[in-house]
Amino acid sequence: MSKSQSIPYKIYLSENELPRYWYNIRADMKEKPVPLLNPATLQPMTAEELSVVFCEDLVAQELNNDDRYIEIPEEIQNFYKMYRPSPLVRAYCLEQKLGTPAHIYYKFEGNNTSGSHKLNSAVAQAYYAKKQGLKGVTTETGAGQWGTALSMACSYFGLDCKVFMVKISYEQKIFRREVMRTYGATVTPSPSDQTKVGREMLERFPGTTGSLGCAISEAVEAAVTTPGYRYVLGSVLNQVLLHQSVIGLECKTALDKYRIRPDIIIGCTGGGSNFGGLIAPFVGEKLRGEADYRIIAVEPVSCPTFTRGRFVYDFCDTGMVCPLAKMYTLGSGFIPAPDHAGGLRYHGMSTTLSQLYHDGVIEARAVKQTSVFEAAEYFARVEGILPAPESSHAIRAAIDEAIKCRETGEAKTILFALSGTGYFDMTAYEKYHEGRLTDYIPTDEELERSFAGIPNVNL
Amino acid sequence: MSKSQSIPYKIYLSENELPRYWYNIRADMKEKPVPLLNPATLQPMTAEELSVVFCEDLVAQELNNDDRYIEIPEEIQNFYKMYRPSPLVRAYCLEQKLGTPAHIYYKFEGNNTSGSHKLNSAVAQAYYAKKQGLKGVTTETGAGQWGTALSMACSYFGLDCKVFMVKISYEQKIFRREVMRTYGATVTPSPSDQTKVGREMLERFPGTTGSLGCAISEAVEAAVTTPGYRYVLGSVLNQVLLHQSVIGLECKTALDKYRIRPDIIIGCTGGGSNFGGLIAPFVGEKLRGEADYRIIAVEPVSCPTFTRGRFVYDFCDTGMVCPLAKMYTLGSGFIPAPDHAGGLRYHGMSTTLSQLYHDGVIEARAVKQTSVFEAAEYFARVEGILPAPESSHAIRAAIDEAIKCRETGEAKTILFALSGTGYFDMTAYEKYHEGRLTDYIPTDEELERSFAGIPNVNL
Repeated sequence: MSKSQSIPYKIYLSENELPRYWYNIRADMKEKPVPLLNPATLQPMTAEELSVVFCEDLVAQELNNDDRYIEIPEEIQNFYKMYRPSPLVRAYCLEQKLGTPAHIYYKFEGNNTSGSHKLNSAVAQAYYAKKQGLKGVTTETGAGQWGTALSMACSYFGLDCKVFMVKISYEQKIFRREVMRTYGATVTPSPSDQTKVGREMLERFPGTTGSLGCAISEAVEAAVTTPGYRYVLGSVLNQVLLHQSVIGLECKTALDKYRIRPDIIIGCTGGGSNFGGLIAPFVGEKLRGEADYRIIAVEPVSCPTFTRGRFVYDFCDTGMVCPLAKMYTLGSGFIPAPDHAGGLRYHGMSTTLSQLYHDGVIEARAVKQTSVFEAAEYFARVEGILPAPESSHAIRAAIDEAIKCRETGEAKTILFALSGTGYFDMTAYEKYHEGRLTDYIPTDEELERSFAGIPNVNL
Repeated sequence: MSKSQSIPYKIYLSENELPRYWYNIRADMKEKPVPLLNPATLQPMTAEELSVVFCEDLVAQELNNDDRYIEIPEEIQNFYKMYRPSPLVRAYCLEQKLGTPAHIYYKFEGNNTSGSHKLNSAVAQAYYAKKQGLKGVTTETGAGQWGTALSMACSYFGLDCKVFMVKISYEQKIFRREVMRTYGATVTPSPSDQTKVGREMLERFPGTTGSLGCAISEAVEAAVTTPGYRYVLGSVLNQVLLHQSVIGLECKTALDKYRIRPDIIIGCTGGGSNFGGLIAPFVGEKLRGEADYRIIAVEPVSCPTFTRGRFVYDFCDTGMVCPLAKMYTLGSGFIPAPDHAGGLRYHGMSTTLSQLYHDGVIEARAVKQTSVFEAAEYFARVEGILPAPESSHAIRAAIDEAIKCRETGEAKTILFALSGTGYFDMTAYEKYHEGRLTDYIPTDEELERSFAGIPNVNL
């Protein structure tokens, strides 16, 4: 295709072009991500140990560093058909408005009721739980995006869904809470009196508004103490990156149809789920030496895991009950500023992505919250879609790269992931409109204090 | 296509299959809708009179009873390409769950940031305002769906957008308000001190929370007193039905591709915009004797315009400043119960649809709010999409028809419009979850009192 106008505004794949296999990046990595460690023994977690908390098939996927392709079960494929393929959009209007010679594409994952890519893994995890004959799953949710996606998936498969929602979110994010209830989930404000850890927390801090760390601990406790339940998680894990590879695989097929080759691939990173999914097949080509791409992870300056973190073994949760993972981390005690991209406030990062970053396969940059909202509003007005604050980190970087192209005259092809919509984030937009958003950058001293909590395994 | 499984879950048209012409139902009606009347002279409104309030090209469309097809300007076609074609979905999961032999299809119009079909007409109206060289447009909004759509369209064309938002909504529906602001609209709580009618209202009722009637009056006053401004409206008018015909035209093309012929076509009706758009080409065939369809308008029992209203000339607004229209009406003074389908609480109905109903071309039924939310939740859990309360009236009727098919064993094909999503309606869902939703049916005496306010033109 030489004439760019022959490329439609939206490239949709047909149902028979949908991926039938997930792609497992780890199979092509020379340096595999190192295993999770049992926090008690400091030995690699076995499948048996992991199976107490997670579903069996998911444990197998978590530990599978070898199989390049893993078949997507038909039931999951059928669910995907309800909202996938997601559109790959040529941002003609944005290009024109920016006056850039760059060609900009974005993969839009917000076209479903959960409003984000989270559903891609939620349905897989719910499916395997059902297949194992479980009665239900537990999870935690902060902003509520993951909880919503999981509720939808569980409702479809007829599985109980217990969501521990950080108390302050439970009280303030009424919309999210009620969406989960519409899908039949039990939503409990955390800390609650339903778990030992919750009761202890309530006793020690009667007025607490909760934290994600505590909600994780409650969800894990509820899973391991309730027969027929397991715990599920929406990011960070290898299995999640595997499921999310549908994003990148669809992209690749759509781009190949029009013989488009991206020069720069951009995504936002919190735990790494949408970014890892988007880049999967492209990283694969890069690792196999078949193609080269610039691949950029974008994170908030307020939670600079890649750009200022350390690549060490650390706790995945603040409660320090979960396994240790080797990853870029700010320390599990890191308290991120009240940034409005709730999904990007995690102290750690996917072990797979951490290894790729360490090996120089991908790069990273950090951006300021106010510049992110500026990009978000600009994008909304030009492209019509109101983006999630998280996704807007990728928009910011894509616009910056397109502006560079305007300056150099290069017609680069930029691909980014628009991982979700911001319909439930309007209080953050309200603050932006009223000039009440601030930029917070942790000091070196703050980070040093947080690094001090990293365990000694790394010697 | 004999094997139904060969029909995909979602039928997407390609960009070159998108409609290039709107379809004007009135061209095929033997009994044309009668003209709007000037409330002062009781004579038909002339183009000149209408042009004081509305844009010139839109006035021409409003009065055009003859041209069957009206070309969609390229600029509007390009905007449509950002979010259209909308998917026509085969509701395989719903069919299976209901155990019905019926084939159910729905046209999903919620796949854009405004969350509904309203954008189809908003972009057309903004385009013609820009073409006329206007500086901006004014409108009113209650729940905010129309205001959001108009803000998006105005932002795209670089047009000022002044939205008078009913004060109670302005204060409570913060999300909607901030979406409009994100798109650069000026949102003013009504009554305001910016108009004469607003100031009078504030003086007489200092603590008032506003009403749609007052907001309309303010928007019209602001339009006619501000140079370079006109007033725009999101429903009821002929021009709106014309623009919304893209819904039905896309449906028809998609169904024809797979040789599917609907037996029953269903939509919800407030002012009639999504229903009128969906049914347009099908009604055309019916009027021309080329095909027959059962066409069902669904309204709330709390605002039963078709099923209990009168077909007479009446005021379109509570302030009685707008032209008189001959339509099914409950009387312009009708105060609907606080039903949660805000978009269906209008006392009147599109004149075109009113004439079609009067002539027996379409039928109507009224449904209860609680049964609507029951259908909404059922649908969300099975089909994944969380529907708007308005759209859920159509879902209720579609499910009821599918259940009848289960009882009779008939494999009818049902098509309905899923006009929007319910993401901003979660407080209504919350009430439903807590058992606090009620059904309100106006008494005959209440309706008689309201009918008494209908003007004497009808003798």
